Amino acid sequence: MIMISVRKIYKDTEQFTNEKVTIGGWVRSLRDSKTFGFIDLNDGTFFKGVQIVFDDSIENFKEITKVGVGTALIIEGTLILTPNQKQPFEIKATSIEVEGECPPDYPLQKKRHSMEFLREIAYLRPRTNTFSAVFRVRSLAAYAIHKFFQERNFVYAHTPIITASDCEGAGEMFTVTTLDLKKPKFKEDGEIDFKEDFFGKMASLTVSGQLSAETFALAFKDAYTFGPTFRAENSNTPRHAAEFWMIEPEIAFADLNDDMNLAEDMLKFIINYVLENAPEEIKFFDSFVSKGILQTLNNDMNADFGRVTYTEAIEILEKSGKSFEYPVYWGCDLQTEHEKFLSQEYFKRPVFVIDYPKEIKAFYMRLNDDKKTVAAMDLLVPAIGELIGGSQREERLDVLQSRLAEFGLNEDDYWWYLNLRKFGGTRHAGFGLGFERLVMYLTGITNIRDVIPFPRTVGKADF
Amino acid sequence: MIMISVRKIYKDTEQFTNEKVTIGGWVRSLRDSKTFGFIDLNDGTFFKGVQIVFDDSIENFKEITKVGVGTALIIEGTLILTPNQKQPFEIKATSIEVEGECPPDYPLQKKRHSMEFLREIAYLRPRTNTFSAVFRVRSLAAYAIHKFFQERNFVYAHTPIITASDCEGAGEMFTVTTLDLKKPKFKEDGEIDFKEDFFGKMASLTVSGQLSAETFALAFKDAYTFGPTFRAENSNTPRHAAEFWMIEPEIAFADLNDDMNLAEDMLKFIINYVLENAPEEIKFFDSFVSKGILQTLNNDMNADFGRVTYTEAIEILEKSGKSFEYPVYWGCDLQTEHEKFLSQEYFKRPVFVIDYPKEIKAFYMRLNDDKKTVAAMDLLVPAIGELIGGSQREERLDVLQSRLAEFGLNEDDYWWYLNLRKFGGTRHAGFGLGFERLVMYLTGITNIRDVIPFPRTVGKADF
Repeated sequence: MIMISVRKIYKDTEQFTNEKVTIGGWVRSLRDSKTFGFIDLNDGTFFKGVQIVFDDSIENFKEITKVGVGTALIIEGTLILTPNQKQPFEIKATSIEVEGECPPDYPLQKKRHSMEFLREIAYLRPRTNTFSAVFRVRSLAAYAIHKFFQERNFVYAHTPIITASDCEGAGEMFTVTTLDLKKPKFKEDGEIDFKEDFFGKMASLTVSGQLSAETFALAFKDAYTFGPTFRAENSNTPRHAAEFWMIEPEIAFADLNDDMNLAEDMLKFIINYVLENAPEEIKFFDSFVSKGILQTLNNDMNADFGRVTYTEAIEILEKSGKSFEYPVYWGCDLQTEHEKFLSQEYFKRPVFVIDYPKEIKAFYMRLNDDKKTVAAMDLLVPAIGELIGGSQREERLDVLQSRLAEFGLNEDDYWWYLNLRKFGGTRHAGFGLGFERLVMYLTGITNIRDVIPFPRTVGKADF
Repeated sequence: MIMISVRKIYKDTEQFTNEKVTIGGWVRSLRDSKTFGFIDLNDGTFFKGVQIVFDDSIENFKEITKVGVGTALIIEGTLILTPNQKQPFEIKATSIEVEGECPPDYPLQKKRHSMEFLREIAYLRPRTNTFSAVFRVRSLAAYAIHKFFQERNFVYAHTPIITASDCEGAGEMFTVTTLDLKKPKFKEDGEIDFKEDFFGKMASLTVSGQLSAETFALAFKDAYTFGPTFRAENSNTPRHAAEFWMIEPEIAFADLNDDMNLAEDMLKFIINYVLENAPEEIKFFDSFVSKGILQTLNNDMNADFGRVTYTEAIEILEKSGKSFEYPVYWGCDLQTEHEKFLSQEYFKRPVFVIDYPKEIKAFYMRLNDDKKTVAAMDLLVPAIGELIGGSQREERLDVLQSRLAEFGLNEDDYWWYLNLRKFGGTRHAGFGLGFERLVMYLTGITNIRDVIPFPRTVGKADF
């Protein structure tokens, strides 16, 4: 028995027309009369299902009319074109076999469910239209990212998840330990004795692979990471998760302009790939999740991204006449409301804001000649705000050392990072793309919990 | 200034012949006489470097003759074919600019370094021949895996890294916590009160994404994971790391044969992709790391993988006349020496061993009709032993419940996993491929520490 996927039938309908096919899938709905019935069968390979028509010529007709939503069936039948109906074809069943039953307490009965309810049954929600679309787009976007970088000869670096260095410094970290928490050993000074721990010192979950990725850029010229990162921040918002995936390319012999070009090319490549490979899913989002998202994605894909300095952006915001919740002044951190205004209302397209005040950006960003700003760039996109944050990296050893001192950081913790500058360091740049935020941008889903299969947030680590 | 990558020059040599080119890269070696010099320049984009010829017509000739190994240079020059020399072409420099100096204490001077020493400078080792080859192959293999599954419409599932369920049960786990280890809160019974912890309960690092991946297979039919997994095992061997990456496909409406076919197709696809995209690297491994590996990979790629039951494999081992360190008897776990004998000496190709005694395999593997064995499969390959382990999963709710009981596991911990059987469960199967072991197989590198950029092992979490 060779099963055909529903995707294949949709793609090569002609090949299967009037042919015998076998498919396996799950009942999304079933209606029947005394002598015949219709099943909407979805096998997960394609957003749409296929209509199965059956009648009492099949021996288990009665049994089939009674199967519940969610039942797994194996259908043998003939594919018939139905040019006068909503669906392009249907399968006239010659046999239907129950592969797996589904009782009436199946939580996904055919009706609208709230997103909150679906989170509680996260192990089943990929079977709904919304989440089958979200997680397929997530998968395609992940692949598009690999494809983009690999076709450009970037080397994929698996940077460490567990880190024993404090030097990432981008937020609260989770401790990773094998110590017996009930009776850890203490040192004389009253601190925990991590010598007894698995790694012989305190270890945490990474918040960024960037510093490690720089070691690859300075060997392979072009490198990228794509892995999970973690924040132990106690923020219960629709935009924060404790575990999320990041993409961090690093390019050597490259400056901030090269960095922005790379980010712009990458984002357009991803949008194009998703539009081409998930048109049904994006149409669904456009109709039922976020009206207009198809138009936005098309606009963004075809726009020349704007480029504006932070100083100019502040002027635009000050002159906008808008009353923002957070005050605008040179030196302030841009808030989501500011970012959305710039991208959505003012530029009406994605826009890079560059050259931020050095005080509000990380120590490793390259100091500009004005000594006040750094060669940073944030890409703002409509509806989302900041999607990408990057910079040219400080390659001058002495300047980097001064910057560490300004931030009160200890050079010893950065010995190898400093050595990258000492041993054949080059100008280089990179950025970080939060993968979940990208998926939200592509789907119009507004809660990060709904773009991760099993989200981890404060107080929640179910499944 | 538009830089050309060395890879591009090798691929499209004709296009650049007698043309002006600009390249940036790092000095691997330099020799000079009074009036001219040669530089072996490597820009990381290609395994091989390019020979730069320069003479005292460039204004900073003296300076350039003195730059150290590891210095970053930007070269302008003309590409000249050199049909009578070892290298196919060279670049006659018209200008050489020092982008980043490299002092004499650079640890990677041109000489042989031990693998142990190179581990100590893991942040620099991608600049050596061996590690540039290893990490490029690693990157290509990762991409080949995504390509294989995505072209077959598998959905990539990012399964959780942090897990609060104990139900993975495949080894020692790391605790993930934000508790103050110096003064955690205790409950009345003397246990730690994890209510105060970030997730409100005890959390750990995942040892496998399989159970979560099954939720995706039962929605999308075909799904896969590719992410980091963790073992807190105190094993200091060349084969164990605390942090490593795993690929875990799951397929619905599929049995053990489908599973083996998938594994065989996947491995052949990966080998083929790496041979096609990294011929220089594989040739290097064949010459300097593991003689004969090219032949082995070609053999394996073109072989029909063997298939043998565990019972037959035990007979083969018993009749082999070999004296193994570990005794062979029906019911024993196959050791690496047994696996290597079967694959390398007996079958002389990759071989699947199936239908293992249920006692030595996991609870979720499907019980065979003999009630003694389970529908498991291990793929053994020459030189490595077990590369892939998989099984048809137990889809029968009542059998799965009995198996949990046999293993002394608590049904409550598996409520959603059991529900997957209750709600439209289907026959399904999957396997796990340890990514580092795959890279060892592809490169001939024998220590897992040398196929991970920054390895994490007992007592080691540097960089």
